[in-house]
Amino acid sequence: METRIGFLIVGDEILSGRTGEKNLPALARLLDAKGLEVRETRVVRDSPEIIAAAVREMSAAHDYIFTSGGIGPTHDDMTVDGVALAFGVAAAENPEAAAVLAEFYRRRGLKFTAARRRMARAPEGAGILKSEFAGAPGFVFRNVFICAGVPEIFRLMAAAAAEKLPSAPRRHVLTLRADGAESEMAEALAAVQKRHAGLKIGSYPREENGAYFCHFVFAGADGAAVQKAAAEMSDFLARQNIPRRKI
Amino acid sequence: METRIGFLIVGDEILSGRTGEKNLPALARLLDAKGLEVRETRVVRDSPEIIAAAVREMSAAHDYIFTSGGIGPTHDDMTVDGVALAFGVAAAENPEAAAVLAEFYRRRGLKFTAARRRMARAPEGAGILKSEFAGAPGFVFRNVFICAGVPEIFRLMAAAAAEKLPSAPRRHVLTLRADGAESEMAEALAAVQKRHAGLKIGSYPREENGAYFCHFVFAGADGAAVQKAAAEMSDFLARQNIPRRKI
Repeated sequence: METRIGFLIVGDEILSGRTGEKNLPALARLLDAKGLEVRETRVVRDSPEIIAAAVREMSAAHDYIFTSGGIGPTHDDMTVDGVALAFGVAAAENPEAAAVLAEFYRRRGLKFTAARRRMARAPEGAGILKSEFAGAPGFVFRNVFICAGVPEIFRLMAAAAAEKLPSAPRRHVLTLRADGAESEMAEALAAVQKRHAGLKIGSYPREENGAYFCHFVFAGADGAAVQKAAAEMSDFLARQNIPRRKI
Repeated sequence: METRIGFLIVGDEILSGRTGEKNLPALARLLDAKGLEVRETRVVRDSPEIIAAAVREMSAAHDYIFTSGGIGPTHDDMTVDGVALAFGVAAAENPEAAAVLAEFYRRRGLKFTAARRRMARAPEGAGILKSEFAGAPGFVFRNVFICAGVPEIFRLMAAAAAEKLPSAPRRHVLTLRADGAESEMAEALAAVQKRHAGLKIGSYPREENGAYFCHFVFAGADGAAVQKAAAEMSDFLARQNIPRRKI
């Protein structure tokens, strides 16, 4: 049985395009190493009610969800409230998180202020994600992993969360680049897909300096079938004199 | 009344992290020029049923939605089928799109093959998006703008779609960079937000070469209030000797 994973990104700054989104590719790479995939991603605004609605839907539709963003010390950090609201529990200071933070600031000779204490708030009953990041911890509550949005910190927290997930056999994936028009190659690719119904074959047109080319991605559990399907497509491209290479 | 806009990105290649997502920032910039914002974004897999479910939910929750990806000539391009399925109509060759494509290939001396004809398929009753892109057109059906995923083409199609939207007064936005720890500045920022309840004030921590800093974004319809709120925060930072600058 596939482990279904969803990803919820919280933040007006992502929706506005001011901040580029870097955490989806990072999460996908982490999961890929365990044979897992992200099935769905959503980006929502900084609002407890909107976050709660997305958490409710996504935590029901997937086995696990990761969240990114909205767990810092400022007034616009609302993810913890959103997750708590989704499950009808309170958001309150988490003793384990408060201890981690108190120690973090003590070592640096800094005061553990009210704003800093805010980062210890979690849905009541949550556990903390023990990552290499020494500052504010992420949380795990029910099937939700609550991670920071800053990419460097997200990666550490998500890695700690991914350790808790079951592994699946890694899929075999092979990518073929073909420097031709997608519409010239589509029928041959569809025929290859038809002969290899157990594989997932994707075509991704790209553009570089005005020139169009395609990435054909062959993926599946059967490595020999992946090789064979790619070879069939490569043979077609050779017959058409379309430049191609594995990447 | 705010015009509510959702964005649906279709594609396994985005979910897998193989292809970076560039269309959300591009759409946000296009909309910002008209005083509009993206309220929600979803990324879903290449499957007509999954696309249809997302289109149904998002087209009901927003005034308009844009889709990106899955409208090319290959077997894994399923967005048109998904949108048609969402509204219970057939996907069929669109005469206007077929005429555009036939002319496009005629001029190039190329055959209008079955694979190329596939790009003329649309939900029955759809209109075409007349963009500067001379190849396969995007579509508009009900409140859904169906655009290509390749960023250069997406931008042209989305721009053509955005022209059909009402304009709103542009929000005033001012960003202040502060080279301090977010937790040292959080209480002062919350106080500024409290004094300016009509504004939306966000704090976005960043990291660059191991150093953390923050972007504080002040946004709202009242330009004078935006200036005043930013000045208040800047005064606080000056008193704390925290380096700061408008960006």
